Amino acid sequence: MTTLRPDVHRELCAVVGSDHVVCDPQRLHEAERATFATRGRVHAILRPGSAHEVAATLRVASQYGTALHPTSGGRNWGLGSRVPPGDGAVLLDLGRLRRITDYDDELACVTVEAGVTFAELYRYLTERESRLFMSTIGASPEASVLINAIERGDGSGPYGDRFAHLASLEVALPGGEIIHTGFGRFGPSAVAAIHRWGVGPTLDGLFSQSNLGVVTRGTIWLSPLPKALGTVRFRFRDPARLAAVVDAVRELRLEGTLRSVVGIWNDYRVLSVEGRYPWQRAGGRTPLPRPVVDELARAWGGARWFGLAAVYAATRAQCDANLERVRERLTGVVDELDVDVRTGEPTSGSELFHEEEPALQFLQGIPHEGSLRSVYWRKLALPERLDPDRDGCGVLWACPTVPLRGRDALAAVELSERTLTAHGFEPLLALVAQTERTGYLIPMIVYDRDVAGEDERALACHDQLLGAFVRLGYLPHRLGLQSWSSLPAAQDDYDRVLLRLKRCLDPADILSPSRYDFRQGEE
Amino acid sequence: MTTLRPDVHRELCAVVGSDHVVCDPQRLHEAERATFATRGRVHAILRPGSAHEVAATLRVASQYGTALHPTSGGRNWGLGSRVPPGDGAVLLDLGRLRRITDYDDELACVTVEAGVTFAELYRYLTERESRLFMSTIGASPEASVLINAIERGDGSGPYGDRFAHLASLEVALPGGEIIHTGFGRFGPSAVAAIHRWGVGPTLDGLFSQSNLGVVTRGTIWLSPLPKALGTVRFRFRDPARLAAVVDAVRELRLEGTLRSVVGIWNDYRVLSVEGRYPWQRAGGRTPLPRPVVDELARAWGGARWFGLAAVYAATRAQCDANLERVRERLTGVVDELDVDVRTGEPTSGSELFHEEEPALQFLQGIPHEGSLRSVYWRKLALPERLDPDRDGCGVLWACPTVPLRGRDALAAVELSERTLTAHGFEPLLALVAQTERTGYLIPMIVYDRDVAGEDERALACHDQLLGAFVRLGYLPHRLGLQSWSSLPAAQDDYDRVLLRLKRCLDPADILSPSRYDFRQGEE
Repeated sequence: MTTLRPDVHRELCAVVGSDHVVCDPQRLHEAERATFATRGRVHAILRPGSAHEVAATLRVASQYGTALHPTSGGRNWGLGSRVPPGDGAVLLDLGRLRRITDYDDELACVTVEAGVTFAELYRYLTERESRLFMSTIGASPEASVLINAIERGDGSGPYGDRFAHLASLEVALPGGEIIHTGFGRFGPSAVAAIHRWGVGPTLDGLFSQSNLGVVTRGTIWLSPLPKALGTVRFRFRDPARLAAVVDAVRELRLEGTLRSVVGIWNDYRVLSVEGRYPWQRAGGRTPLPRPVVDELARAWGGARWFGLAAVYAATRAQCDANLERVRERLTGVVDELDVDVRTGEPTSGSELFHEEEPALQFLQGIPHEGSLRSVYWRKLALPERLDPDRDGCGVLWACPTVPLRGRDALAAVELSERTLTAHGFEPLLALVAQTERTGYLIPMIVYDRDVAGEDERALACHDQLLGAFVRLGYLPHRLGLQSWSSLPAAQDDYDRVLLRLKRCLDPADILSPSRYDFRQGEE
Repeated sequence: MTTLRPDVHRELCAVVGSDHVVCDPQRLHEAERATFATRGRVHAILRPGSAHEVAATLRVASQYGTALHPTSGGRNWGLGSRVPPGDGAVLLDLGRLRRITDYDDELACVTVEAGVTFAELYRYLTERESRLFMSTIGASPEASVLINAIERGDGSGPYGDRFAHLASLEVALPGGEIIHTGFGRFGPSAVAAIHRWGVGPTLDGLFSQSNLGVVTRGTIWLSPLPKALGTVRFRFRDPARLAAVVDAVRELRLEGTLRSVVGIWNDYRVLSVEGRYPWQRAGGRTPLPRPVVDELARAWGGARWFGLAAVYAATRAQCDANLERVRERLTGVVDELDVDVRTGEPTSGSELFHEEEPALQFLQGIPHEGSLRSVYWRKLALPERLDPDRDGCGVLWACPTVPLRGRDALAAVELSERTLTAHGFEPLLALVAQTERTGYLIPMIVYDRDVAGEDERALACHDQLLGAFVRLGYLPHRLGLQSWSSLPAAQDDYDRVLLRLKRCLDPADILSPSRYDFRQGEE
C-alpha cells in the first residue's frame, strides 16, 4: 500500500517503469529506520535507471508537489541513513545508476554514476590492474563513491578532501533540466573530466550538501599507487600532549611532508573497532568506567591516543626522506613512533600491499568494513552482514570543524569527553587532519537502540554537543537529518539569498524540503 | 562631463562621497583603453570605500538600471583591462578596499580586501618577516591578489591553482545584500578562514568569473617558505619532444614529486621577456623570421623550449630525493637539465633566496614585472613605468585548456604556431602545468597598436585561434572582454539555468551585463 495519489503513482510508473516503483509496506518501513529516532515516512521508493529518468521524475514531482528525497547507497549511517526529512517523502533511490562510463589511465580519472559504490569502483580498478587508487572512506564499502564526495565525506590518500577532487558533475534539477558543471556542458571534450572550474561561474558547489539538484554522475580523480608507501604510527599517554601533536601534524601537512589525511584516535575509539563493549569487566554498567579502559589499555603500554599517517612516494629515497622528517618532528612529541616502508610496482588488487590490516587497506584505497564494526560497540555480537539500521545500532555523529591547531583540538576534545560522559556514553573520538589547516573531529555517540530511553538520551547529548561546539566557533561540516534546522541564523544576508536560490531552482519545493537550507531566510 | 543622469549621480555621490565619483573626461577616457580595440565607454568611476558602500552602490544602480562594471587593480591586460562590456558602464573601482584585516601565522592565511595588490601583500608579509609566501603571478604586481584568484588566474607555488586556495569570500550582490561564503556567514568563528566549504551548499563558485556578485574580501591561504628550495631548469631542441616532456611532467605532478606549477616556454616567449623585437636583424619585417630566431637561439645552444619547476621541501634530504626523481624521469627526455638547491631559514623579504632573477622571485612569491616586459615586445623601448594600456601595447591572450598529455599539448602548440604565424604574429607560447592533469596553454598575440590595421588583424587571429581550440575540445579557461559571447551554446540546459540564476540574483541586469554569461540561454 502506498500513500501516493493514484494519478501521481501512474505518472511516476510511466517514467521509471512500474517494476521500479516500490510500494511494499515492509520495504518502505525498512527504509524509515535509521541509527537514531526519526519520524520521516517513506511513501514509495522510485528506482530510476538513468539521469533522464531522474530528471523526468523530478518534473512530475514538481508538477504534483510531491516531496522527493534522493538516496544512493542508502548508507548514510549516523547522519540519517535513507530517511527523508520532515514528515516524509518519496525516496528517489539512485542505486540503479550503476555505470562506470569512462576511465582514463593516463589522466587518472574515472566517471561514475551516482549508484556506483566504493566496492564496485575498487573491483573495476582491480579488474584492470589499474596503477591508480581512489580515496576511500572508513564507512561502508556499499556507500556511493560519488555521493559521499558530494556530501563532503573525508577519505584516505592525497585526495582525502574528496569534494575537492571531482569534475564535470551531471545534475538533474527539480524543473526537469539536466546540466553539467565545468566544461561538461559543451558535450564531449578533452578537458571536461580533468578541470574543475570550466569557464564562467562554477556551479558545482550549489549541488553539494544541497537540496537544489540531484547529482547523477561525475568524474572522480584518482591517485597513482605509490611505489613506496610509508606508514607512520604513533602513540602517546598524556592527553594534554594532543595539542603538541596536532601542531606538529599541521606543520608536516602545510610543508608538504604529509600529503594525506592523518587520523588520530583515542583509546575508546580503538576499543570500539577492536571488539565489543566489555560488558563483563564493566559489570554491565554504562558508560565504560575509566579504570576498565586503563586496564584494557595496559596491552598498549597505557597509550591514550593513536595516530596513523602515510607517505605516498614514487621512490624509496623520497619515502625515506619524508619519514625522516616526520621522525624528526614527532620525536619527543609522541611516546612511541613506528615507521615502515613497503616498496614495489603495485596495481589495484595486487598482493604487494594487499594486507589484511584494515588501516593499510584504507591507505591504499581498498574499501573494507573494519571501522564500521564500532557501531556495534554496545551490541553483544557482530552479525554476518552488518546492517546497523536493521540491527538497532544507535549511532549519532557530531561533525565539528576545528582549526588544525593544538589548543583548538584540545578544547574540542575535552568538550566532547565531558559531554558524552555526562550523558552516559563513551567518548569515541577520531580527529582527522583533513586538510593542511582543518581538522574534523568526529565524536560518535554509539548506543543500543533496543535499550529504552537511549534514543532520547543520545539525541539530547548530540544537541548539547552541537550547540556547545557552535558557541566555541567549531561549526559542523556536516549535519545529520535531525539537526538541519539547529544552526544559528546567518549574521549576514546568506540565508535569504540561499532561500531565493532554492525558490529559483526548486519553485515547488519538492526536493528534500528543509535539507541543509535551514529556512532561516524566510522572507 | 559625465553621462550619468543627474539624479543617479546625486544618489551615488551620497553613497560613496562626491570625492570618490570620478567624472573627469580625461580619466574616464584613460579607463576606456585596453591592449586591443574596445568600444565600451566609461560613464563615471565610483570608488567606494567599504563593502557596505559597494552594496549600497549596487542597490542604487539596480534601482535606476545603471550598468556597473567592477574593477580592482585595473590590470587585466590582455583580457580587457578595465574596459566595461557592451556599450559601456559605470566603473566600480574597488581600489580603495585596501585593508588587510587578518593574518594568521600558524594557520597560514591572510584576509584581504579586493583592492589589495600582490605588491602590497608581499610588503605586508615582508614587514612581519613572515615565514609564509603567497602564490604570485607573472603579470603585474599592481593587480589585485584576491580578484586574480577569483578570476582563476594561475600562480607560483603549491597553491598555483589560486582559486582553489581561498575561503570565506565576502560578496556584495546586486540587490544590496552582503553574504559570506563557507562558515563566514555565522560571523567571527575559529574556522571561517581555514575551511572552504562550510556547511550546506557552497556558493563561492557562483562569484568566480561571474557577473552575479562583487567579491569585496576573502581569505587567501599561504604556504610556508621552503627550508630547501630546489629549482629544475630544462631545455630541448626538437619541438616534437614536447609530448614526452609533458607526459613526464604529468607523472611527476600526479605522484607528488612536483607540487607546484611547471612552466614551459618556447624560444619566442623567452626572447620577448629578454629584450625587444630585433627590428634591425629582422630588416624591419614582421613576423620575426625563423632564421633570425635560430641565430639568436645559438646563444642557448639551439634550444627551442625551456622549462622551470620547483621543489618545495622542509629538509635538504627531501629536496634532494625529489630532485633525484626529477632527474631520473627527465634524463633522456630533455637535452639539458640543471638542478640547484638553496637552503636556509627564510622569511619573506629575507636576503637568503632574494635573488635578482625574476624566475626565482616568482617561485618564492615575490611579485615582479619581469614577464610583463614581453607586452612591449614590438615596441622600440621600455618606459620607466610600464603601462601597456597607455603605451599602445597590443596584447591579446587566448587561454585554451589542454589535458596535461603529450599529444594534446603538441596539437595545441602546433595549432597556435600555425595560426599566429599565418596572421603575422610570433607564436609567443607558454604552457603551464597548472594542476596534476590540466595544462594551460597561453598563446600571446603581441603587437603594436600604433601600427595601422594591427588591431583588426590581432582580433581576427584571436577569434580564429579560439574557434579552432574549441573545435578540438581545448576549451578556454578564461575569456577576454571581446569573446564573452563567442563560445558555443551548451549542449544541455546549463545556459538556461545560468540565465535563471542571473535573473534571480541580478533582476535589473546591472552587473557587467553579458560578462561570462553568454546569453545563450535566452528563453
